[in-house]
Amino acid sequence: MEPGQEIGLRIDQTLTQDATGTLVMQELEALGLDRVRTEASVQYVDHNLLQADERNAEDHAFLRSACRRFGIWYSKPGNGVSHPTHMQYFGIPGKALAGSDSHTCAAGSLGMLALGTGGLEVALAMAGRPLHVTMPEIWGIRLTGRLPEWVSAKDVVLELLRRHGVKGAVNRILEYHGPGLEQLSAMDRHVIANMGAELGATTSVFPADAAVRDFLRAEEREADFRELAAEPDAVYDLTDEIDLSALEPLIARPTSPGNVVPVREVAGEPIGQAVIGSSANPGLRDFAIAAAIVVGRQTHAAVSFDVNPTSREILADLTRTGSTFDLIAAGARIHQAGCLGCIGMGQAPAPGRNSLRTFPRNFPGRSGTEEDAVWLCSPETAAVSALTGEITDPRDWAAKESVPYPRLRLPEHASVNRAMFEPPLPPEQAARIELERGPNISGLPDFEPLPDVLAGPVLLKCGDNVSTDEISPAGAKALPYRSNIPKLAEFTFTRLDPDYPRRAADLATDSRTGQHFVVGGENYGQGSSREHAAITPRHLGLRAVVAKSYARIHWQNLANFGVLPLEFDQPADYDRIDPGDRLRLENLHAALAPRAEPRLRLHNTTKDETYQLRHRLSDDRRRTVVAGGIIPRLAGTDSSGAPSATR
Amino acid sequence: MEPGQEIGLRIDQTLTQDATGTLVMQELEALGLDRVRTEASVQYVDHNLLQADERNAEDHAFLRSACRRFGIWYSKPGNGVSHPTHMQYFGIPGKALAGSDSHTCAAGSLGMLALGTGGLEVALAMAGRPLHVTMPEIWGIRLTGRLPEWVSAKDVVLELLRRHGVKGAVNRILEYHGPGLEQLSAMDRHVIANMGAELGATTSVFPADAAVRDFLRAEEREADFRELAAEPDAVYDLTDEIDLSALEPLIARPTSPGNVVPVREVAGEPIGQAVIGSSANPGLRDFAIAAAIVVGRQTHAAVSFDVNPTSREILADLTRTGSTFDLIAAGARIHQAGCLGCIGMGQAPAPGRNSLRTFPRNFPGRSGTEEDAVWLCSPETAAVSALTGEITDPRDWAAKESVPYPRLRLPEHASVNRAMFEPPLPPEQAARIELERGPNISGLPDFEPLPDVLAGPVLLKCGDNVSTDEISPAGAKALPYRSNIPKLAEFTFTRLDPDYPRRAADLATDSRTGQHFVVGGENYGQGSSREHAAITPRHLGLRAVVAKSYARIHWQNLANFGVLPLEFDQPADYDRIDPGDRLRLENLHAALAPRAEPRLRLHNTTKDETYQLRHRLSDDRRRTVVAGGIIPRLAGTDSSGAPSATR
Repeated sequence: MEPGQEIGLRIDQTLTQDATGTLVMQELEALGLDRVRTEASVQYVDHNLLQADERNAEDHAFLRSACRRFGIWYSKPGNGVSHPTHMQYFGIPGKALAGSDSHTCAAGSLGMLALGTGGLEVALAMAGRPLHVTMPEIWGIRLTGRLPEWVSAKDVVLELLRRHGVKGAVNRILEYHGPGLEQLSAMDRHVIANMGAELGATTSVFPADAAVRDFLRAEEREADFRELAAEPDAVYDLTDEIDLSALEPLIARPTSPGNVVPVREVAGEPIGQAVIGSSANPGLRDFAIAAAIVVGRQTHAAVSFDVNPTSREILADLTRTGSTFDLIAAGARIHQAGCLGCIGMGQAPAPGRNSLRTFPRNFPGRSGTEEDAVWLCSPETAAVSALTGEITDPRDWAAKESVPYPRLRLPEHASVNRAMFEPPLPPEQAARIELERGPNISGLPDFEPLPDVLAGPVLLKCGDNVSTDEISPAGAKALPYRSNIPKLAEFTFTRLDPDYPRRAADLATDSRTGQHFVVGGENYGQGSSREHAAITPRHLGLRAVVAKSYARIHWQNLANFGVLPLEFDQPADYDRIDPGDRLRLENLHAALAPRAEPRLRLHNTTKDETYQLRHRLSDDRRRTVVAGGIIPRLAGTDSSGAPSATR
Repeated sequence: MEPGQEIGLRIDQTLTQDATGTLVMQELEALGLDRVRTEASVQYVDHNLLQADERNAEDHAFLRSACRRFGIWYSKPGNGVSHPTHMQYFGIPGKALAGSDSHTCAAGSLGMLALGTGGLEVALAMAGRPLHVTMPEIWGIRLTGRLPEWVSAKDVVLELLRRHGVKGAVNRILEYHGPGLEQLSAMDRHVIANMGAELGATTSVFPADAAVRDFLRAEEREADFRELAAEPDAVYDLTDEIDLSALEPLIARPTSPGNVVPVREVAGEPIGQAVIGSSANPGLRDFAIAAAIVVGRQTHAAVSFDVNPTSREILADLTRTGSTFDLIAAGARIHQAGCLGCIGMGQAPAPGRNSLRTFPRNFPGRSGTEEDAVWLCSPETAAVSALTGEITDPRDWAAKESVPYPRLRLPEHASVNRAMFEPPLPPEQAARIELERGPNISGLPDFEPLPDVLAGPVLLKCGDNVSTDEISPAGAKALPYRSNIPKLAEFTFTRLDPDYPRRAADLATDSRTGQHFVVGGENYGQGSSREHAAITPRHLGLRAVVAKSYARIHWQNLANFGVLPLEFDQPADYDRIDPGDRLRLENLHAALAPRAEPRLRLHNTTKDETYQLRHRLSDDRRRTVVAGGIIPRLAGTDSSGAPSATR
């Protein structure tokens, strides 16, 4: 297990959410799976909850039917965000979890090895196949000291972001240890593990210790506890240390989680919104501290104080302990349990008005507002600022108002409700279930094999760092179509060029889509893991991308869905190609044969020039691309993995 | 005060909500108003709460600034639906209330005379001018007996709809009296008065009696109580009687509130959703009874059980009494306080799946789902059906499960919180406030006077019963543009003809919009009171409609905004005009002079034919139309009404 090499992980549990899950279910169907082979696979409905039209509810019904068909637990809308809910009801120390959501890593708080990845990878894990990842370096983070009053777990991970930035932990696993852990509950650790994603980490891991045992006991699952900790003399590839007692309230300025400064440095900025919730501050404590701060007071008239309970259980606990009442009385808007504004589903702020959120991300426009100004902070900072109407260091407010830091008395036992999950059906019943596919659920397109010759125009030439959000946008407009590939395809690349889908359609004939090329710069396909960014352009006829370099997950998604990810041998050749030039690749099958040289010649027939290209596909991935992707390659075979190759 | 004649009402209070209020505030500005002249005017934010993009929050900020400018109370998002909230905090027996929402009539539950009307009418009432209405007939409804178990107020108004249909009370005021009233709390009466709108009533009135005193006492406003009742020997224009003891659970089938049948007749139909809430079942009791039914049980896995608290106060009461906890534990989705699914803002059901709702309306597509199947019923029927997963008469479920009808113990004092309203600013401070107009808030268009000659093509010829929803659609796509007339205009008539806005734009020149005509059939402009249905086509160049007949409020809105509402003298002439024909009206100023014959000649220059038209405009309304509408007529004058004419 050398850092940098590909390893395969056996996966015990999977987690899917509705925005990615509808595709995963269609992939299971396309793979011919009869029943999942994991210990537990759980489908949550937490993203598409607005239901502005019929598509969301149709997705929910489809997902429930697929759960019944394939032996998956179903968590219906209102049960809450996948990450804290999974932790409460399914998380077990030492188990490996794969999830089609980038914050799956939050389960590291329980001592799980938890990885977010593309939906097809999760589908394959559900089918019992290993998850392939690049072996990361292990980064030991030692915590010492005790957090001061008015400083909490969010400030710990903001401190890491302040030190190391949003790429600081790429290809690394953060392993937390040291005496400072004692003060952090399992949910506090969830806050820190969750935002490991914002550091770029492969995942984060905490030990399974007394805090985890307390958590599982409160959830009536103490039997699932097993102690797990690094050996005392463990050696890490890298090390860092945080003295918790030296921390102060921190805040990430717009528009990156890496723009961290002390709250005092920006105090006084007027705000229009403050939001508590999301998987980046999901715990009962996070809401209870906000309630204890605002109790008996009134939030500022210009501020919308939005409270997003992260799970049914937490809302139940919050309600029976009186905190919900206190929040309502102080002027909070109590929303349904779910992701909501964190993924741009509602709660969009007014343009240019500051919005303080306990969320993990503040990328520009992610809130649903083009000209947004979103700041990331702790519940303490958000709640105090909701009262004052401006960004406020909670310590300064407390001193001025003579308010002591609230001592919370949280219940020892949670409002556990296992009945809220629909369990998998017995196999004989499951086999008889029909998928309930409404009119907006398309089914996957046919994935034809790679032709031996690819020829067509360059429909788009883009610059460096194009993100998957630019390839296939999210947001309230596009997200409802996540289970309708032809419709979602109409959004492809439209952030870069609104005309791309039409030009692709013009190339198509009655019988086939129109082959074409996209030319990219460096780091093509960065950002979210969404596989839609590979599927929708392929649906429009894209079978090869030629770029200077690729982001890791998108490169993998392209290959998984049968699109050739090619690289310029000479980056300067990028400049020789113009949009509209006609390109041609010949003898592809021979070029992609096992052990063939990873080199191809690209002919520009418009300019009558030839460029040297290369690829980084292993023999196994070559077979996948030639077959048209993993789905056609595996479809119909025994889904346990009968094709001799491991991927 | 003869039924059928126009009367003027002095208005004591006004109520506006955000979907209509942004235009009302712009009208106040256009009228040059300095400060409202009512006893209390309150702006609620209850409609546009999804905030899928920046426009909703921008509207909220604009509304708050307008409240501060004009001396209006501001109720921020999360405080709840206007109707129950107004009743709790502002309603006073005997006062007259005008509101820019068709369910304003719900305040009749307190013995108020409460009327829903167009926004400009409300703006004029805010400016201290009388509200003009047609004197209605008074319909005495005598209630006797006591409601059986499992039957509640909603079933009373459903019984009226079963008997009389959706037009049964047009141009009538329903006045409730009799011994059956004793059992009905003020909020129960709100349920009945609210859905008087569905009977077509001008409004409904209940006496201000002990039940109203109890309600005001619970709201800490007993001082506002005054006893009001019809004289014992009152004579009504019409009468009806309901023996409450003979009622059973009723339900309105899709797609009209008038399709009422006993629940037993449709029992067994599977459902996908049940929703408790809206101004048609807003009371603490309505939620508490649902909680008492589901407590300790679990809602069906296929059912989304949505709970929409109608106000902050009711959610607070529901929470401190434990009902919120019981609902959460049983599987409910607790949503923010507001209108939500009742006005198609979220909660759209899957196509073809039955949705049971305690709402007032189930018009086709109003839910946000084109092929919807929405049923209207009591909280008892909705909650029991959420448990069983199918439409269920609660009596049959109770008998089968041996469940007694819950005896609720509701608190005597409500969770009153006056701090949640921002009071009007003192005049000297208000005068210095600038309206916070974001980039999506357009300001009203210029309203030019009526030209002496109108000439242009027929851009649209439509059939009978065209509704204002077809002229200017609502829903999640169009509603966010209610404060942006040019943008909203792009939706004009698109439900009938997606190309209308483009054709209108093609007619326009650089300097002016393109004059054109719309030809309509019978009952043109039926349905909601939205004045956008007059403003947006006018913005696109419509200055005259020629129809067989008009719905009352839209006819009034057309005249108020300077569009000539003309009628065929010979209905058969309707058939002689084709879309695209060019029409011409000459000498309009002479034809609309006071006391001139209400007749005009319409020349069809394409066919060289002439048709005889008539209008029903009073001398005063003629002046309004010639001036270009009420706003240009009054703008700049003393807004107390200095122009000599009363309207």
